[in-house]
Amino acid sequence: MNPIANRYTELVGIDHPIVQEGLGPFRTPKLAAAVSNAGGLGTVSMPGMPTDLDAGARTFREHIEECAALTDRPFAVNIPVGVDNNGVVLPFTDIYIRTVLDARRVDQSLAAQLTVLTTSAGFPGDYIGMIKDAGLIHQHKVGSTRHAVKAAEAGVDVIIAAGFEMGGHAPSKAVHSYVLLPNVTEAVDVPVLLTGGVRDARGLASALAMGADGVAMGTRFIASSANSDWHPTYIQAILDAKEGDDVAFDGVYGPCRGLKNAASLKLLNHQEDGTGEVIDAVELTRWKIESMQRAQTTGDVTDGLVLTGQVAAAIDDIIDIAHFVPNMAAGAAEILRGLASALPDTEHAFS
Amino acid sequence: MNPIANRYTELVGIDHPIVQEGLGPFRTPKLAAAVSNAGGLGTVSMPGMPTDLDAGARTFREHIEECAALTDRPFAVNIPVGVDNNGVVLPFTDIYIRTVLDARRVDQSLAAQLTVLTTSAGFPGDYIGMIKDAGLIHQHKVGSTRHAVKAAEAGVDVIIAAGFEMGGHAPSKAVHSYVLLPNVTEAVDVPVLLTGGVRDARGLASALAMGADGVAMGTRFIASSANSDWHPTYIQAILDAKEGDDVAFDGVYGPCRGLKNAASLKLLNHQEDGTGEVIDAVELTRWKIESMQRAQTTGDVTDGLVLTGQVAAAIDDIIDIAHFVPNMAAGAAEILRGLASALPDTEHAFS
Repeated sequence: MNPIANRYTELVGIDHPIVQEGLGPFRTPKLAAAVSNAGGLGTVSMPGMPTDLDAGARTFREHIEECAALTDRPFAVNIPVGVDNNGVVLPFTDIYIRTVLDARRVDQSLAAQLTVLTTSAGFPGDYIGMIKDAGLIHQHKVGSTRHAVKAAEAGVDVIIAAGFEMGGHAPSKAVHSYVLLPNVTEAVDVPVLLTGGVRDARGLASALAMGADGVAMGTRFIASSANSDWHPTYIQAILDAKEGDDVAFDGVYGPCRGLKNAASLKLLNHQEDGTGEVIDAVELTRWKIESMQRAQTTGDVTDGLVLTGQVAAAIDDIIDIAHFVPNMAAGAAEILRGLASALPDTEHAFS
Repeated sequence: MNPIANRYTELVGIDHPIVQEGLGPFRTPKLAAAVSNAGGLGTVSMPGMPTDLDAGARTFREHIEECAALTDRPFAVNIPVGVDNNGVVLPFTDIYIRTVLDARRVDQSLAAQLTVLTTSAGFPGDYIGMIKDAGLIHQHKVGSTRHAVKAAEAGVDVIIAAGFEMGGHAPSKAVHSYVLLPNVTEAVDVPVLLTGGVRDARGLASALAMGADGVAMGTRFIASSANSDWHPTYIQAILDAKEGDDVAFDGVYGPCRGLKNAASLKLLNHQEDGTGEVIDAVELTRWKIESMQRAQTTGDVTDGLVLTGQVAAAIDDIIDIAHFVPNMAAGAAEILRGLASALPDTEHAFS
């Protein structure tokens, strides 16, 4: 039934160690519910970084409730940790984390489902205790072994090792999945998930061979029939992408990966040759977020930022998540069993 | 005895599907012989791109003969395919390939050992037929799926999929191991090796799970006790490297990965802000090669280019190749067997 059950699936109470990545600043409740219903772990992403934080918090809560209404399985939320120049956590992060804690406090049924909180970007610091005390499982996403060790020592329950080939906001240093993952699994004792470059059963089997307990995927799930919230043109841009069509440009907190187009090249040139107009950093951040959301909602994939992982190059079909997730787990089990049984020594053992 | 024997080890006649990468423009006969003696496939690299091509060819032949004297196992040579602006193969490539064919023609004993020719960088075109006719196994290294398909269709026997995290001369497009490898294994039927990011048994097991038949490693083998040809300071720089210490700069044929230092940052800045002195391209290429060789021979790791893969960050010991290679193969088998036997269904099957 659950072909790759392990300590991670047991901890989180899911069938398959396959997680849908945070995909902020987008609308993700349907996608998250579809992944959770399929036996993986869906993730409701933060809806944006609005000026009106109360409105943002209301939207986030609506997304959480919409997801909860669509599944009776566990699901997660993802909240990036933004910090100012003094290392102080930004208001949007604080209010979103508190929104989750409040929502669970007043609704026991929701608390039974929304059992995982994923943080990404900056170090969650004091929030680690707060998340733990609320009874949540705390996953934290890192792009370096140093950050993995720091987070695990501070009490984070699950590390998501994020290779630089991931989509959206990428780690500040370009450490790639094949290098990062074994470094991280060697350095920490808590369960580790790989994100960045995974798209199918082979990616899962391969991550397990590196010592991971599971995988998280963003781009693969965006191109799914469950994802009716996103503009079809955005999804088509993922299907059309070829090797070399992606680029890491200057994002909101740090590097950001998406497709090469007018919008990303504008940011890339701005970074590289210094000839771009001087734009106020706050205004630039607002433009980036607005541009990301425009691509997703209106399908403007030329002048809007299209965030995808490098793996978009290999994605050319729209999956049905309900079948895909269990098949991916079964496929990974089959690969591992097949490889083990093909080993010369194993053959001798059976002969 | 040979825990991961497969179609690749059978094709090449080695014990373990573990290849030592081409490491030009350096001196590699001892290293290559050590890897071959350990049951993997060592590779003698081209010694440089000298102005005096006859002298270069003599050096290359000396390196090949030195390797042959140190092992009675199969070994490979690696020759990058350089092309000019009109797509014509450069003289150094032509003369090095002919040197190998000549050496084998006049020495049957050498021909029985030097059974594999690896090409890298540009497309080997008409040389494919020439290499095949000489009875050599032809391996070709690619950084994209398109190039893998083209090479396999043209008759290349083995594809080496080179993720951008590799050291030295990297593919022109930044496609990383976790994305590239499954794309390539899906696209071609010939044996595929992964290079870029691999350092131990987990990397091999992981590559096999992605559908590869083996792995190639450069940086891991440089830091070995067999490698007395390289300056200890160079090897120490690999041991000291941390995550984020590597950089892809403008190399000889395209991007090149090495450690961040005065030499690589000079090239990086030259690329990025356009403020570097205008240097003649031929002169610049000569400086780069001289700088690479100086680092390796004199240990000048600050003003010399130190080529390493991103995996240098994870390498902190000097291995004994004779033990490392068979242990890596045995370890990969153990990982695959362990993962398969831990699968819930397998347990049921045995209960």
